[in-house]
Amino acid sequence: MAEDRIDFWLTLGSTYSYLSVTRIGAVAKTAGVNFRWRPFAGVRALTGAAPFPDGAAKTRYMWRDIERRANMYGIPLKLPVPYPSANLRLANSVAFLGMREGWGEQFVCASYRHWFQHGEENGGEPHLRASLAECGQDFERVVALSQGDTVQHDLDAETDEARRIGIFGAPSFVVGSEIFWGDDRLDDAINWFKHSRLGPSGQKP
Amino acid sequence: MAEDRIDFWLTLGSTYSYLSVTRIGAVAKTAGVNFRWRPFAGVRALTGAAPFPDGAAKTRYMWRDIERRANMYGIPLKLPVPYPSANLRLANSVAFLGMREGWGEQFVCASYRHWFQHGEENGGEPHLRASLAECGQDFERVVALSQGDTVQHDLDAETDEARRIGIFGAPSFVVGSEIFWGDDRLDDAINWFKHSRLGPSGQKP
Repeated sequence: MAEDRIDFWLTLGSTYSYLSVTRIGAVAKTAGVNFRWRPFAGVRALTGAAPFPDGAAKTRYMWRDIERRANMYGIPLKLPVPYPSANLRLANSVAFLGMREGWGEQFVCASYRHWFQHGEENGGEPHLRASLAECGQDFERVVALSQGDTVQHDLDAETDEARRIGIFGAPSFVVGSEIFWGDDRLDDAINWFKHSRLGPSGQKP
Repeated sequence: MAEDRIDFWLTLGSTYSYLSVTRIGAVAKTAGVNFRWRPFAGVRALTGAAPFPDGAAKTRYMWRDIERRANMYGIPLKLPVPYPSANLRLANSVAFLGMREGWGEQFVCASYRHWFQHGEENGGEPHLRASLAECGQDFERVVALSQGDTVQHDLDAETDEARRIGIFGAPSFVVGSEIFWGDDRLDDAINWFKHSRLGPSGQKP
């Protein structure tokens, strides 16, 4: 097929993206598929609403569901973690810059590890400092560039592009014009990428 | 384990429930698992909001996603279908009565078939008449009983029970205190029921 990779739309602050970010490297290797990581400004920036309001049954379910699935994948996790995140715009700006400069995937992984394993507030200064240090990046330089006009403009353009193609949540995996929303749809996206259908032989994967 | 069945919470008007309703009989037989069908008054009755607002990107995704998954399962489908449904309270009252009287599962299946294959407005009189006829049930008798105080009271109590245990969407599968939300989580529910974990050997199913 024409596409040479699956677009992996993510946004720091998305809880389920922890699962995808952590396992996607191994999944890509096993499946022999390339993913292009595309951070955008946030789910609220796309839809106008927070996906998991405080106190909602859906929010309680989300935490338990992530815990069950992390156990299934063997992914470490220490709940509760601070939620929602206060400074997502900056965190996503840093991730966006990192993708340009080549340390973005490493930063996103470190950032989720510090949030979900060490309980550091995602997007806060201690969290960003620790995550950037793991990538060998200078905090002051990166934050100044991330807050600059170029990154801010381009992150908005990327978020507009996410909205244009129909993204409304994270993680989302995009193969051509097909969107697969949710960490639990990663296998579906890979099957679609390889066979243009959900299951390898038209059956449930 | 102590539980002898999986609770299958559904509500007529839920689009994804079409997939579960249609395939759950075969799934139950293959897995050797019993499901107790528990209709409740509606997602809006639980959460106060419609799950798929008109014009939203999530709503467009939902229709395409159902189409892809119906194809995977080999389930017939003729989109678009009338949505949302106008008289869900009555449709769910009929389903609730049917579960008591023994023709409920048949009615729910017929009801979804008439909605998703024949394009009849779910809960409208032609739709209810046709679906009840397939179960050999008299429309006037059933509607009178369904609108009566007993069914109305008990359907509300069942909906309160759904809210109490943390249901916020349909379909939901419940094993003990564990909720699995979505048709795509039916396998997870079965694995949890049998092995108290998501995958048969601790791996992704």
